[in-house]
Amino acid sequence: MFVPTPPQTLAVPSVEWHCVIRHLMALSNNHCLRNSGLCPRSCVAFSCNKYKDNCSKQNRFQVVACSRKMDKDLTLEAKVETLLNSVKWDEKGLAVAIAQNVDTGAILMQGFVNSDALATTISSRKATFYSRSRSKLWTKGETSMNFINVHDIFLDCDRDSVIYLGKPDGPTCHTGAETCYYTSVFNSLQHPEVEENKFPVSTLYSLESTISQRKAEISSQDVGKPSWTQKLLLNGSLLCSKIREEADELCRTLENMEDKSRAASEMADVLYHAMVLLALRDVNMEEVMQVLRRRFNKSGIEEKMSRGLQTQPSSQAFGKT
Amino acid sequence: MFVPTPPQTLAVPSVEWHCVIRHLMALSNNHCLRNSGLCPRSCVAFSCNKYKDNCSKQNRFQVVACSRKMDKDLTLEAKVETLLNSVKWDEKGLAVAIAQNVDTGAILMQGFVNSDALATTISSRKATFYSRSRSKLWTKGETSMNFINVHDIFLDCDRDSVIYLGKPDGPTCHTGAETCYYTSVFNSLQHPEVEENKFPVSTLYSLESTISQRKAEISSQDVGKPSWTQKLLLNGSLLCSKIREEADELCRTLENMEDKSRAASEMADVLYHAMVLLALRDVNMEEVMQVLRRRFNKSGIEEKMSRGLQTQPSSQAFGKT
Repeated sequence: MFVPTPPQTLAVPSVEWHCVIRHLMALSNNHCLRNSGLCPRSCVAFSCNKYKDNCSKQNRFQVVACSRKMDKDLTLEAKVETLLNSVKWDEKGLAVAIAQNVDTGAILMQGFVNSDALATTISSRKATFYSRSRSKLWTKGETSMNFINVHDIFLDCDRDSVIYLGKPDGPTCHTGAETCYYTSVFNSLQHPEVEENKFPVSTLYSLESTISQRKAEISSQDVGKPSWTQKLLLNGSLLCSKIREEADELCRTLENMEDKSRAASEMADVLYHAMVLLALRDVNMEEVMQVLRRRFNKSGIEEKMSRGLQTQPSSQAFGKT
Repeated sequence: MFVPTPPQTLAVPSVEWHCVIRHLMALSNNHCLRNSGLCPRSCVAFSCNKYKDNCSKQNRFQVVACSRKMDKDLTLEAKVETLLNSVKWDEKGLAVAIAQNVDTGAILMQGFVNSDALATTISSRKATFYSRSRSKLWTKGETSMNFINVHDIFLDCDRDSVIYLGKPDGPTCHTGAETCYYTSVFNSLQHPEVEENKFPVSTLYSLESTISQRKAEISSQDVGKPSWTQKLLLNGSLLCSKIREEADELCRTLENMEDKSRAASEMADVLYHAMVLLALRDVNMEEVMQVLRRRFNKSGIEEKMSRGLQTQPSSQAFGKT
């Protein structure tokens, strides 16, 4: 049985706080971080407010280092080094890094990384970049506290571009916008006089945005003849009957072995009507995705669904409806 | 009433085909393109196979130019120029360009653009980049025919990074992979011996991938005790009863004014079970999104849904269930 050694305070040189992790990786007895999942054993903790004043204001960024060096981690250190060496850095030692929301797929921002920035992100799981203007590392959120919590990192086929797939703690853009991309070129060309934020969202979230607009139009009493979405928003009974009806029709595409395209079409109907209900309750699809991610990431979805089944056994015979 | 002038053939210098558009924009009488939506009137068409042999093999890229210069278009030309001038090009005259799938949100590839490449994409609506190694423009798909059809272009807050939000005609990566990002850093570090493609997909598509895997395990008879997903896949009756049940529960969250978090949770249940049905029928969520996009982009969703209502009136009283 493993017996942890007691926590101890490390003597770390006074460097910028986001560099602490790299220093730790280099320290012979304290080379890995709990956040990285590299060292689940006994650890030594200290906070970054020793190294950067403004960090201590709201959030103590816990840096946790191992008190024991293990062969497994040595190998991992070597693996990280190999991986970093495999990146095709440009003549300035940089690669493009794109941060993407794991739940919605929205591209949050784009920056550049050098080897240190990428290593820091691997260790800390906070999206970290290299600022070309300030010539130093910066972790998104170190000032705003809106960190991007990185779930995975992807390299492209040329190994000169990376994606940080993660969950933002809040709006990513310094302007307060959800993402830094809020200027549509085609909107700007067609209506340069209208300053309208439009985000590069995928179909599902574009539909969500349309439904929200229709809802807002009702509130603002700016509505003439109500649209179909507005009729649904104004009539919960109608909405619920449509959701049940569309779910039934989706099932029939399987039960009656209808055309594949029918299944896609009925699923679209289910999604649209269900999303109108969510809009009525002020629930975002991002929240739904978060629920799904938490369930199936832990392989919990099947367990949860299975429990649901026990309380409500299937009584409907397939093919009979 | 506008009377179109008859089509005419243009004398265009023999240049690379993807530059034709830029040439057209400069021609005094033929400065805009139908694809750009800038000129809906009488047009002159010619195909790129005059300019690039391999283009004529499979796909005649239609370049259509106006035969009349209109004030409106002159203004638009000026607007494009203003927009291009507003981009913060780096010291090499480049900006980062990211191509993203409009339906799934997947990041397809990342390249660089100069002013010509961005102008070409605005006009042609085919994602076009500047190749740093070959020092020339290239349109994604000019060899593979897997073009990325750009629906909109977004600039970031710093105006030095763009997103091409579009629909790919086929796999984007030269390796045949759907996207160029198929190497997970954390997978590589944990299992460097396993060469496994893993894509940076958002939650919905990650769930879809998990369901597909479970289905594949059934086919490969590599399954011991079936998981919950596999039970559903093997029992259509059970699956359909769960879909109807979950849709009903989602409705009840509105009818009984249950907690918001209940609505998110029930929507997650509806989505998961409906996606198992789709997997059973080999229907991708991307196909569903395509249906949704086509409907609501044309403001057709409400019309379609409204028609559906006429054939099946709501009979269920809200609040009674």
